[in-house]
Amino acid sequence: MPGDAGSGPKQGRRGRRPAGEDTRGLILDAARAEFAERGFDATSMRGVARRAGVDPALVRHYFDSKADLLAAGLVPGGVDPRVVVGAVAAGPRDAVGEQLVRLVLSVWDTPDGRARLRAVLSGALSADPAAAVFVDYLRRTVFGSLAAGLEAPDADLRVGLVASQVVGLLVTRLVIGLEPLASLPADGVVALVGPTLQHYLTGDLAVVAPEEQNSPHGE
Amino acid sequence: MPGDAGSGPKQGRRGRRPAGEDTRGLILDAARAEFAERGFDATSMRGVARRAGVDPALVRHYFDSKADLLAAGLVPGGVDPRVVVGAVAAGPRDAVGEQLVRLVLSVWDTPDGRARLRAVLSGALSADPAAAVFVDYLRRTVFGSLAAGLEAPDADLRVGLVASQVVGLLVTRLVIGLEPLASLPADGVVALVGPTLQHYLTGDLAVVAPEEQNSPHGE
Repeated sequence: MPGDAGSGPKQGRRGRRPAGEDTRGLILDAARAEFAERGFDATSMRGVARRAGVDPALVRHYFDSKADLLAAGLVPGGVDPRVVVGAVAAGPRDAVGEQLVRLVLSVWDTPDGRARLRAVLSGALSADPAAAVFVDYLRRTVFGSLAAGLEAPDADLRVGLVASQVVGLLVTRLVIGLEPLASLPADGVVALVGPTLQHYLTGDLAVVAPEEQNSPHGE
Repeated sequence: MPGDAGSGPKQGRRGRRPAGEDTRGLILDAARAEFAERGFDATSMRGVARRAGVDPALVRHYFDSKADLLAAGLVPGGVDPRVVVGAVAAGPRDAVGEQLVRLVLSVWDTPDGRARLRAVLSGALSADPAAAVFVDYLRRTVFGSLAAGLEAPDADLRVGLVASQVVGLLVTRLVIGLEPLASLPADGVVALVGPTLQHYLTGDLAVVAPEEQNSPHGE
């Protein structure tokens, strides 16, 4: 799939400025400021365009919806999640857990990354349509690459478990700042959480088949 | 510690209605509606009082701050997190992981629980002071009981790791609705995530001492 992360590349129709990463970045910056000030519901594509000083049609050229705009702000400029996650998934199979934690921290354990997380998560959690599009965005850009590298029948479940641990780590360590997890060096977090992701991705999962749901394994 | 969960019981001074759980619940309902409609920043103690039809002083009688009001809305009425978490921590040591997942799902895997999670998390993530008070609330009501039952030197770190997995599970399964995790029966989630919590609480952790942070264990 060509194009930049999550914007759903569309062919240019009109716009007062030349299309390019700078304009896209300008729109994303304006959107982040609007979401932060007004919240998801009160932010509009038109308001974002006004703040960015571009025509509303140009905003729609890059982003299909407000929620798409929200999700695209999660990743720092220049990072294509598909590429980096794909690289981790293609690396040594027994190191994929630790490498994934390291990757996640390298992208978001910065002041800019933390601000992005806070803005996007609070927006995604505040409104149903935002959450749904956010999930769709993650599927397209992150989880898809990871699941494709696994070649397991329950790849989607494994990726979902990884997502549950990664999202929670990001929220507790970087957004909420829960101690002592928040002050731990990155290597410490990798050593603690890496094995969990490794287990979810490549270990023996206690998968409960639907017909067994009243007598789970492991008890 | 006496009193109800997280409201920081204060002695009555004044108030147009008799103090009691009903009034407290009325104020919490009004607060949830205000937070949902206006977001954390635009909600005021005064606005909550107006919506609940009570004197602002009565809101301050039950809740120290707006963030306290936000956090207290996380738990369904009648549930005291200190009591239930204390019971899990005091139960069989080798089942604490699975029982904790089961407990978390029993409290929040309902339409009401999901609405509470969404409202509180989006509020806590949207503003710095809310996040800080939210953490303080969790420490007082949930994590404190859990850490006290562990009797381990690194109890706070273990509880933080548990929090990271639990928060992420709640967000992905119940708020965002990530499939197939969202549709899995509770027993299935217990079987998959319980062992992770068990490991974090009672297993051998690869704790990296500060002076070793450039040569982590397990690599």
